[in-house]
Amino acid sequence: MKFDEAYSGNVFILSNPSFEDSNVVIYGMPMDWTVSFRPGSRFGPGRIREASLGLEEYSPYADRHLEEIRYFDAGDIPLPFGNPKRSIDMIEEYIDSLLEADKFPLGMGGEHLVTWPILKAFHKKYDDLAVIHIDAHADLREEYEGEPLSHSTPVRKICGLIGAENVYSFGIRSGMREEFQFAKESGMHMHKFEVAEPLKKVLPSLEGRNVYVTIDIDVLDPAHAPGTGTAEAGGITSKELLEAISAISNSGLNVVGADLVEVAPAYDPSEQTPIAASKFIREMLLGWTHKK
Amino acid sequence: MKFDEAYSGNVFILSNPSFEDSNVVIYGMPMDWTVSFRPGSRFGPGRIREASLGLEEYSPYADRHLEEIRYFDAGDIPLPFGNPKRSIDMIEEYIDSLLEADKFPLGMGGEHLVTWPILKAFHKKYDDLAVIHIDAHADLREEYEGEPLSHSTPVRKICGLIGAENVYSFGIRSGMREEFQFAKESGMHMHKFEVAEPLKKVLPSLEGRNVYVTIDIDVLDPAHAPGTGTAEAGGITSKELLEAISAISNSGLNVVGADLVEVAPAYDPSEQTPIAASKFIREMLLGWTHKK
Amino acid sequence: MKFDEAYSGNVFILSNPSFEDSNVVIYGMPMDWTVSFRPGSRFGPGRIREASLGLEEYSPYADRHLEEIRYFDAGDIPLPFGNPKRSIDMIEEYIDSLLEADKFPLGMGGEHLVTWPILKAFHKKYDDLAVIHIDAHADLREEYEGEPLSHSTPVRKICGLIGAENVYSFGIRSGMREEFQFAKESGMHMHKFEVAEPLKKVLPSLEGRNVYVTIDIDVLDPAHAPGTGTAEAGGITSKELLEAISAISNSGLNVVGADLVEVAPAYDPSEQTPIAASKFIREMLLGWTHKK
Amino acid sequence: MKFDEAYSGNVFILSNPSFEDSNVVIYGMPMDWTVSFRPGSRFGPGRIREASLGLEEYSPYADRHLEEIRYFDAGDIPLPFGNPKRSIDMIEEYIDSLLEADKFPLGMGGEHLVTWPILKAFHKKYDDLAVIHIDAHADLREEYEGEPLSHSTPVRKICGLIGAENVYSFGIRSGMREEFQFAKESGMHMHKFEVAEPLKKVLPSLEGRNVYVTIDIDVLDPAHAPGTGTAEAGGITSKELLEAISAISNSGLNVVGADLVEVAPAYDPSEQTPIAASKFIREMLLGWTHKK
Amino acid sequence: MKFDEAYSGNVFILSNPSFEDSNVVIYGMPMDWTVSFRPGSRFGPGRIREASLGLEEYSPYADRHLEEIRYFDAGDIPLPFGNPKRSIDMIEEYIDSLLEADKFPLGMGGEHLVTWPILKAFHKKYDDLAVIHIDAHADLREEYEGEPLSHSTPVRKICGLIGAENVYSFGIRSGMREEFQFAKESGMHMHKFEVAEPLKKVLPSLEGRNVYVTIDIDVLDPAHAPGTGTAEAGGITSKELLEAISAISNSGLNVVGADLVEVAPAYDPSEQTPIAASKFIREMLLGWTHKK
Amino acid sequence: MKFDEAYSGNVFILSNPSFEDSNVVIYGMPMDWTVSFRPGSRFGPGRIREASLGLEEYSPYADRHLEEIRYFDAGDIPLPFGNPKRSIDMIEEYIDSLLEADKFPLGMGGEHLVTWPILKAFHKKYDDLAVIHIDAHADLREEYEGEPLSHSTPVRKICGLIGAENVYSFGIRSGMREEFQFAKESGMHMHKFEVAEPLKKVLPSLEGRNVYVTIDIDVLDPAHAPGTGTAEAGGITSKELLEAISAISNSGLNVVGADLVEVAPAYDPSEQTPIAASKFIREMLLGWTHKK
Repeated sequence: MKFDEAYSGNVFILSNPSFEDSNVVIYGMPMDWTVSFRPGSRFGPGRIREASLGLEEYSPYADRHLEEIRYFDAGDIPLPFGNPKRSIDMIEEYIDSLLEADKFPLGMGGEHLVTWPILKAFHKKYDDLAVIHIDAHADLREEYEGEPLSHSTPVRKICGLIGAENVYSFGIRSGMREEFQFAKESGMHMHKFEVAEPLKKVLPSLEGRNVYVTIDIDVLDPAHAPGTGTAEAGGITSKELLEAISAISNSGLNVVGADLVEVAPAYDPSEQTPIAASKFIREMLLGWTHKK
Repeated sequence: MKFDEAYSGNVFILSNPSFEDSNVVIYGMPMDWTVSFRPGSRFGPGRIREASLGLEEYSPYADRHLEEIRYFDAGDIPLPFGNPKRSIDMIEEYIDSLLEADKFPLGMGGEHLVTWPILKAFHKKYDDLAVIHIDAHADLREEYEGEPLSHSTPVRKICGLIGAENVYSFGIRSGMREEFQFAKESGMHMHKFEVAEPLKKVLPSLEGRNVYVTIDIDVLDPAHAPGTGTAEAGGITSKELLEAISAISNSGLNVVGADLVEVAPAYDPSEQTPIAASKFIREMLLGWTHKK
Repeated sequence: MKFDEAYSGNVFILSNPSFEDSNVVIYGMPMDWTVSFRPGSRFGPGRIREASLGLEEYSPYADRHLEEIRYFDAGDIPLPFGNPKRSIDMIEEYIDSLLEADKFPLGMGGEHLVTWPILKAFHKKYDDLAVIHIDAHADLREEYEGEPLSHSTPVRKICGLIGAENVYSFGIRSGMREEFQFAKESGMHMHKFEVAEPLKKVLPSLEGRNVYVTIDIDVLDPAHAPGTGTAEAGGITSKELLEAISAISNSGLNVVGADLVEVAPAYDPSEQTPIAASKFIREMLLGWTHKK
Repeated sequence: MKFDEAYSGNVFILSNPSFEDSNVVIYGMPMDWTVSFRPGSRFGPGRIREASLGLEEYSPYADRHLEEIRYFDAGDIPLPFGNPKRSIDMIEEYIDSLLEADKFPLGMGGEHLVTWPILKAFHKKYDDLAVIHIDAHADLREEYEGEPLSHSTPVRKICGLIGAENVYSFGIRSGMREEFQFAKESGMHMHKFEVAEPLKKVLPSLEGRNVYVTIDIDVLDPAHAPGTGTAEAGGITSKELLEAISAISNSGLNVVGADLVEVAPAYDPSEQTPIAASKFIREMLLGWTHKK
Repeated sequence: MKFDEAYSGNVFILSNPSFEDSNVVIYGMPMDWTVSFRPGSRFGPGRIREASLGLEEYSPYADRHLEEIRYFDAGDIPLPFGNPKRSIDMIEEYIDSLLEADKFPLGMGGEHLVTWPILKAFHKKYDDLAVIHIDAHADLREEYEGEPLSHSTPVRKICGLIGAENVYSFGIRSGMREEFQFAKESGMHMHKFEVAEPLKKVLPSLEGRNVYVTIDIDVLDPAHAPGTGTAEAGGITSKELLEAISAISNSGLNVVGADLVEVAPAYDPSEQTPIAASKFIREMLLGWTHKK
Repeated sequence: MKFDEAYSGNVFILSNPSFEDSNVVIYGMPMDWTVSFRPGSRFGPGRIREASLGLEEYSPYADRHLEEIRYFDAGDIPLPFGNPKRSIDMIEEYIDSLLEADKFPLGMGGEHLVTWPILKAFHKKYDDLAVIHIDAHADLREEYEGEPLSHSTPVRKICGLIGAENVYSFGIRSGMREEFQFAKESGMHMHKFEVAEPLKKVLPSLEGRNVYVTIDIDVLDPAHAPGTGTAEAGGITSKELLEAISAISNSGLNVVGADLVEVAPAYDPSEQTPIAASKFIREMLLGWTHKK
């Protein structure tokens, strides 16, 4: 028996044992140092992996089987507790390595600030990048209580990096007045409250571009995702999020990377949030990465 | 440092420190003495305040900020445990004082029986009062197990007080046969199962009148509000309730008082019920009281 | 005082004390021996009974009262722990007795494998049987990990027994590729993702036939039924399931037996799952059995 | 198959099917109408029965097997919701019947007020009765908020009925000053904080008398019994309570009836409270009733 | 009705309405910004107040009644989220004001770092201060991940401020090797694992001095206090902590201030941790502050 | 960046990255197929690893630091769901490999049946093996419901394998009469109820022998370990178990392998059980394996 083969239960289901042979790399970012209300998303990646054991490996949505995709679950990036600055440097460097090795990075948060260093790495590689951002919160603050490195700021930073006109937000139902004003004035594309319908309308305009997709699990109503730090009533259903993921799959969009963030299992004794998240990861794997 | 200013964390977010300078008074009624199935709503007001700390102060639904409203969180009325009779007397007297001081009373339950003494006070001031009642339960019983003071009876009592034809119920999906018969025969307006659509149709007919709105959190499906005593499957979503609140805001209706009742936090370890309730209170503040 | 009359709290609300005088028999099957992911449905029947105490006895959906139906809650079949083979023999024999006594069997699971022996008994009595199957999972496996007696196989077995063309599945959103292929090739009728709409279209074609209905609670989204073993995001609402139950009631279909399975209370501290299940049982009693 | 035999899962494990052939009757009192802080003990008896399924039928403490005892689980007395007065009348009448039939009554609460009508019935039959009371709370109030029928008053009432000098309380760590003064002045025997040691010293003095034992589960520390309404830190361990039960068993005391009250399962998602309670009931059955 | 009197439910039970007339001030510090493992203690003070509603006002431990003490619950200090530096400045300034007004400060955390600014304020007033520190963790780190303001460092800082020989730690069962070495070499007094026995031995040596007492709730075993961030198995019972509090009360020690920290309610659905904490606060009020 | 180094969060804290360089191998056995009452221990190993992140790396009990031990966390053995026979074959083969490679096997369950194949492997290597068994349950059944492969039988099987006189059980408080009789008649050494005291007396007699130690977490009282399938009131404290582990460490006993089983996280929303288990694993690592 090879002891490397013994690993099971702590990686995403059907993970390919070899990094080299894989086109996709799943990785975790167990960080919640800047969370204001209810922290705990540092435990998200581990619980999504655990929940993946209950998944069917075939999807009737995508009519595809996980065995058709070669992905490697690389575990969690060992982020230093309480140090947002060094954490985001490590994430950027990590994504640099993945992109250099020509892998599709599929990240699991952790708090939403992690998307900022990921995009910094992508921006170095792709100069025509567009970002699809699915979330309850605008995340467009310039700073939070004087701190620019906050889980309320990543989308604002991304607008500065790649141009606000290349950022498409969906499902937004919470933020400061200034954030909504910025959305209006900056040229970014913000779609409030709804996700699937406006997304379908936007997708044709993104044809031919390299697109990164970031999903904050709190775009779901707390009924569908109680296990998150800043639950916000009035969200969409799991069904609508699955529909949105399928719409992207079916659009022929060139997705080059993606993440799913803010799963905080402590607030969800029923475990329905990591269970749903593992299904979304499966659909993202099957629909977005198969061309790799 | 003034010690009165030290208060934080136990009042609704951004509460104005002065009663006199405020147009609106938020108050709690920690009472669940007559609850038949699963008590616990006496802890509702405190948990709604706690959850309000996680709220954004701006609403993209109303495009208004809490700083535009001057409201004072007056804490809980000190109701005597286990004594429904004296409790409702105290509530009536309390509302009398608020109305005399020309404040908009925004109440948090507690069980639904509290709306009965509130309406007795309002009826003394307004002779053209209409009531909008949003709830899973008809609350039209004459008595419950021989007891007329029960959380199953307030709407029946209100019909007797202001005339059944002035009562508009929405979302009703549970009750005795006799209650549905009464609804039909008495001239009151009962809309079963749905809320937002029938409400929008009714609103124009209420123009120009003084209207009190009472919302029982269990109108929501238990998926959206598990933390309530008599959860009833088949309810509406948080989204629909937000839509209903907005519809009232946008109708120009003259709302003169309102309450939100039956949040029972013990049945909801995810805390999504008080989190949602605090958002509904914010929308009610922003949309219904700003003319004060 | 007669001690037999003392029984209360542990039978479904308003259960008739006499087996002989009843047309319907409610019974539990506390079995979860073959469950792969999260067991616990053996505690389902007891908790559904407990939750039934909070039900109104009148239904505004059916406009009928439980007193119009004569049903006897016969308790749980004493199934031998860990022995699927003997358990299913006992269930078959039990249903044989009920059918011989001309009762309408209304079963509560327990895992879904229980429906297999129930159908074996029904098949002996009715030669034109059709089955309506409402579920998140296809349950069409030939075996699970080499074991043909599994909660993933009952519908496949039923297809073999009564002919695949007599099986109508609704709401299916999870399964192996082979199961969906079997569904296509075998002539059975599988409707993916949705329940109420496709069901309404199918119902007229079943007129005049004897129909058995089996409902797996996990057809609901985990938001509406977190208390189940294999929660699967993207499901229907409680409202849609109530609509489906009503559609069957109103169709005049000749329902001859039914079950509701896979309630696993341990995963749902809010207890909304058994509370919803007890309401579905009420609607099934009122809508499907009243002709008995 | 006899349908009466089908009952399983909802009675205490190994319950004898026949009332007549049994020496002991287990019964539930699902009542919590007078509870001040956190209600819910009305669900206690059902959950203790459910948990009994996990019990070994043999006790290494008593070196006895449940098959050596003939007991009948008679279910719950159908107490009228919210009506303490009629409820206690029904309980008294119920115990009258049991005593007339020469059964050993073993009751499960429900709130502690139930012990008052039980003792009224016992007092009619036994004129030398002593009561052993094991509890965190003195329960010696004359009234609670003006109401003499309260779960804070039963022991005071019992003192009035059988003479304070015949009441022995153990483990008391909470009460009003007046209750502790009454304890001192009335001649009753109150042992604060500890149970097993003082009980062992008292037992010889009770030899030859007819003794009723009432145990409030909250005598345990909340660590050992979180599922109770008025949890009180600083209590005894489960081990000490088992030791106390054994001490009574081994003393040769003539126990004529007993109860275990205040299990409120909603506050204990781990279910350790009903699990422990079912074990205490087993030990009481094996140690106290076998002479019947 | 005076609206200031309406406050109830959100202050510690029986709180005196007047700051001026009170000798003791209870205050909350809702801060957990530096917590490494499981944050959430910012919600501690609010839940301790909520739980205090279930307390008896008389203590059989101290034989005293809360009415004998005049204390004012001043609410929470409005600490700025995520800003440890400004938070500790605000706490120090707050305590300065309380000491100037000659009040006994009784604080509720929040994380343990809050004790550092409290002690800075006390040190300015008292030059002979001794500190009794009851905790599972040594809290003697110089820094945590490079950060000197951490909930792992307060006791080290206090040693630097008032002299290690004036610090007495009890119950310590967790820390780095360096912390235990510092304890040995610095002259401070560390008692591992046990609390009540070593404390009783130490108390006589502190006679005549001004003493501050800080209790971290995690000194309790997680069985007795699951609701804390860094639960550490092998702790003491609630009973032993009550015994320790009583020992200090009975010693005649001149306690000049105290705090209880690290209650994090989210990890304790049974709520036994805030319930126990409110009892400890009661005993501290009754035993330590009555000479004020 | 090497991707193998990226692993973090899903292995036991400070795990050495190299199998070859390690003396100790930690491994998981995610199996609960034969559990009768409440399954779920298959999720134990993953949650113990997760909880280990909150551990201090130094132990004041052992005065040793985890860096002094070289251990490799090999992940979970990929046991086939629902197949006890093949699972135990795989475990035996796995342990064979570890022993051949001269590693100290430190296993995490899963259900207790896993200890049977482990001991079969050890028995092939050591002919003088003694077993220390710390548990609430005797586990001495010959079969359970006709099935010899059950979590109620492993100790009986081990008695047959290595001789009953070489088996030492501690803390036993539950079992069938036949099991206790077997314990008496077979020559094995069973110590009921207590652990630390009898163990200390037995240890000298085991000097010089090769000893395997198996700990079932349910030896703890449910207060200290609610997260287990067959919770049994009346157990020992975490403190006593730590004392027992230390006693073995200090005895100089030649421990050659060990396991900790039956952690079932679903029943413990406070997570205190995996938190405590990770501490026990730390103490076993530091005290029992350092001579490797």
